[in-house]
Amino acid sequence: MSQQPTSNEASWFTEAHQASGSSIGFRTEQLLHAEKTPFQTIEIHQTTDWGKLMVIDGCVMLTTRDNFLYHEMMTHPALFTHARAKRVVIIGGGDCGTLREVLKHEEVESAVQVEIDERVTRLAEQYFPELCESNHDPRAELLFIDGIKYMAEAEPDSLDLVIVDSTDPVGPAEGLFNAAFYASCHKALRHGGLLVQQSESPLAHLELIKSMRSAMRTAGFSAVKTLPFPQPCYPTGWWSCTMARKGGDLSGFRERGASAKNFPTKYYNAEIHKAALAQPEFMREAFGE
Amino acid sequence: MSQQPTSNEASWFTEAHQASGSSIGFRTEQLLHAEKTPFQTIEIHQTTDWGKLMVIDGCVMLTTRDNFLYHEMMTHPALFTHARAKRVVIIGGGDCGTLREVLKHEEVESAVQVEIDERVTRLAEQYFPELCESNHDPRAELLFIDGIKYMAEAEPDSLDLVIVDSTDPVGPAEGLFNAAFYASCHKALRHGGLLVQQSESPLAHLELIKSMRSAMRTAGFSAVKTLPFPQPCYPTGWWSCTMARKGGDLSGFRERGASAKNFPTKYYNAEIHKAALAQPEFMREAFGE
Repeated sequence: MSQQPTSNEASWFTEAHQASGSSIGFRTEQLLHAEKTPFQTIEIHQTTDWGKLMVIDGCVMLTTRDNFLYHEMMTHPALFTHARAKRVVIIGGGDCGTLREVLKHEEVESAVQVEIDERVTRLAEQYFPELCESNHDPRAELLFIDGIKYMAEAEPDSLDLVIVDSTDPVGPAEGLFNAAFYASCHKALRHGGLLVQQSESPLAHLELIKSMRSAMRTAGFSAVKTLPFPQPCYPTGWWSCTMARKGGDLSGFRERGASAKNFPTKYYNAEIHKAALAQPEFMREAFGE
Repeated sequence: MSQQPTSNEASWFTEAHQASGSSIGFRTEQLLHAEKTPFQTIEIHQTTDWGKLMVIDGCVMLTTRDNFLYHEMMTHPALFTHARAKRVVIIGGGDCGTLREVLKHEEVESAVQVEIDERVTRLAEQYFPELCESNHDPRAELLFIDGIKYMAEAEPDSLDLVIVDSTDPVGPAEGLFNAAFYASCHKALRHGGLLVQQSESPLAHLELIKSMRSAMRTAGFSAVKTLPFPQPCYPTGWWSCTMARKGGDLSGFRERGASAKNFPTKYYNAEIHKAALAQPEFMREAFGE
């Protein structure tokens, strides 16, 4: 998946995304760490302009500079849509940035992060300490087990929000993109509860998004909404999350709550939340909305 | 600026953006054309997944697949903000995609495209014919002269909309990003008229955007607004245009007109227009909005 173009001045880490025939690269100064875990290969690079860069199996996971876009959009739209999310589960999310954003919400009483590969979190603690600053919040619990099994065994009607912050639908994450997994999530959620999942690029992965949305409906969710947002480090630089609700719809959100939020963000605000609900013409057409 | 990483299967055209330490590349099948004009070097590549790719001086200008994002956002927000734009001038825009979008508006009575390098347009006619389909519209006029001089000599109070669809602020386009040029535009516009200019990446070029906005105000524009949009082929995959108004404000637009538009688009619609007016938290802070 990865290529290392040469340059006179510096090295570059480049991820060639074969499916879309495009690539994104970062100029690097140093390979800080590389290891093969039982699940995947993880690399940490020092870049010249993007801070630290984490790469898993040749795919860019996050950089210090632009992860705020992804982490804020994976959390705040869902948490300001739910009336009062007390119990949150994050599937994946090993870099802990999603956990940190979730715990900015006072209404959250418990947040369980279920990451299959403990090494992702240990390396995040070392190289992205700012993302891990809420790992010791008394409301946080970090489990290093299989998220698919965890959701299959979760107590019915026990959760308010499930966030699926995973890698692409290949390798260990493949089972997170099908109706069986969504059915586990649906069962574990209370009425009015929300599922939100990273759903790849609106431009390059439209068919995958359509099949995710369809599988979510098959699993019993009554409303589905895809929110696009910019994400420079992922293929096409344009990403999305897809939200699904158990009972009720997804037409509104707690706009006053979002406008009066008592914590800082770098991308998200109430206006941006509304903006992310707007569907480009080609998505409208593809989704029949 | 450009690098050609090697691969077993195919070639890649990669633009390494030195200022942001990031790169974007496309898998190519064939170099279709390369020439040095009096102004710049132009290449046309056939890509595997993005159609044709035009490169000027090593920088990606457009691809068949994603140019709709840029061309629609450079035109429709401005045209649905102006009450009735009759006379439009496009500075640059040699690929003719902006001209095509402008001429979708029935209220436009004349659209003059002022491109310094005729070869850009001739190559667009050959390799991007779909973008040039309105070049022979009786309302269109194509001039191949210096846009800075054209605007300096334009009749005062004669235009409704000036669109600056240029390359980056280096080389021939450098003079399009300063207060002297904006003063020419301001003088040539009627009261209520609009200037809209491509304004680079919100993440990588925030200081440039701030200085453009400030120069527009110095030139006499009474309101300025920056609209972000996704653009996979440009650095960071996230781009923007900045709109300025001579007299009046930029708080609203003709939302009913946009909702009832009688022409097709792939990205733009009334909801997307509203969404583009939302400012991410870090932009709000940078602009003091």
